[in-house]
Amino acid sequence: MKISRMKDNQPLILVVNDDGITSPGIKSLIEVVKEYGEVVVVAPDKPQSGMGHAITLDSILSINKMEIEGVKAYACSGTPVDCVKIAVNKILTRKPDLIVSGINHGSNSSINVIYSGTMSAALEGSLENIPSVGFSLLSHSIDADFSASKYYVRLLIKQLLSTSLPKGICLNVNIPNVPQELINGIKVCRQAKGNWEEEYDERTDPMGRTYYWLTGKFVIDDKGEDTDEWALKNNYISIVPIQHDITNHNVINDIKQLEDA
Amino acid sequence: MKISRMKDNQPLILVVNDDGITSPGIKSLIEVVKEYGEVVVVAPDKPQSGMGHAITLDSILSINKMEIEGVKAYACSGTPVDCVKIAVNKILTRKPDLIVSGINHGSNSSINVIYSGTMSAALEGSLENIPSVGFSLLSHSIDADFSASKYYVRLLIKQLLSTSLPKGICLNVNIPNVPQELINGIKVCRQAKGNWEEEYDERTDPMGRTYYWLTGKFVIDDKGEDTDEWALKNNYISIVPIQHDITNHNVINDIKQLEDA
Repeated sequence: MKISRMKDNQPLILVVNDDGITSPGIKSLIEVVKEYGEVVVVAPDKPQSGMGHAITLDSILSINKMEIEGVKAYACSGTPVDCVKIAVNKILTRKPDLIVSGINHGSNSSINVIYSGTMSAALEGSLENIPSVGFSLLSHSIDADFSASKYYVRLLIKQLLSTSLPKGICLNVNIPNVPQELINGIKVCRQAKGNWEEEYDERTDPMGRTYYWLTGKFVIDDKGEDTDEWALKNNYISIVPIQHDITNHNVINDIKQLEDA
Repeated sequence: MKISRMKDNQPLILVVNDDGITSPGIKSLIEVVKEYGEVVVVAPDKPQSGMGHAITLDSILSINKMEIEGVKAYACSGTPVDCVKIAVNKILTRKPDLIVSGINHGSNSSINVIYSGTMSAALEGSLENIPSVGFSLLSHSIDADFSASKYYVRLLIKQLLSTSLPKGICLNVNIPNVPQELINGIKVCRQAKGNWEEEYDERTDPMGRTYYWLTGKFVIDDKGEDTDEWALKNNYISIVPIQHDITNHNVINDIKQLEDA
């Protein structure tokens, strides 16, 4: 199951996602990155949206070899983060030079980043000290047009392969769902403050039991012009550098009185 | 399914976990918090360790009413974060005054916090602007001794109900697995830098197919004496304030050149 590095100086690029290995978004991403190195895909064998940073602890993982867009691919029974872990530790014979995740069908801006399997896979890559980036298009449609996304993914991949990212961070890239000529450029941003106001759609199953579907609307509570939401609303591609240290360092001193509890 | 606030000025406390509604850890937590208010339990109907911030998007949720330790409880088919969302939005008639998660069987210090369903449930509470805290005991044993944990949970609950936490943060509390007399006190800390070095245990199923179990060892890459790992190693209870803004604000300016990609 180990993959040797086939060609001399080509970068090794791992492709992952959360929509599943057969999604149109991952195909678009593979089409772009295969121009820039040896590509291996390790992605979930079924949709895994909203899986966050979940990993498989109480069950087994299986992987099935296949081919997508002419590159080696492995469908994994686990979560997006499982895919990165098993790729790096079992499937690939060397550390990848770059991990790309997506292209996600739907936004991962603002607070969506913490629910996102796509972005958690990228974050896991950064934990392994591998430059990692997740791409998301602001359309959930299975027929979404990825052509503008591909154009900008290409520009960013070229830059990421020639420069280095600060240690321990990865990039959350969101792309407006508009034709390429309407995209105004790229903005490096912070995560906008926002949250979901959930509603549960209550139904009755054929046995008379109640069940629920999660629905809701996304509410932005942030007027800043330095956020991903502002950028996307103004037809910019947003890039937010994200990290896995979730300590709020600013309040450590403010809550020291808890030591006297 | 709506719960009215029964008793006049009692705080409403929501209890959640990731080990499942029948785990010894959640019973210990309920035993403590029911002294301090009206308690409602909404917890997974099965173990959900390692579920991170996963939510159920592509399937339904069901909840079953029961009673644990004399308090109202709901077993939910979803993840720990689902439990918080459906509790706050569907089961409870008013915002809880406090969300407590755990007591987890096993550590959620250092990077474990991002994989933890226990801590993701608490973080979800803070997203709803509800004071939230997750407790973990450093023992995976089903027979773990929660007596020291209960003593310190009680002290912290009392303090949390009488003071207010800074907005948007929640607390990650880890408790050494030693007798109460050996605990040296409480330290407010930052998340230690650490990571898992995974190994996959490869096996063959009865049909001749290969499958994998995730194993590995945890490696701390942090010599700081202000971390949760340092505190726990020195028999202190660690408290790390955590947040859901995962932007690395420090590097935003350093990567502005990506705007010229």
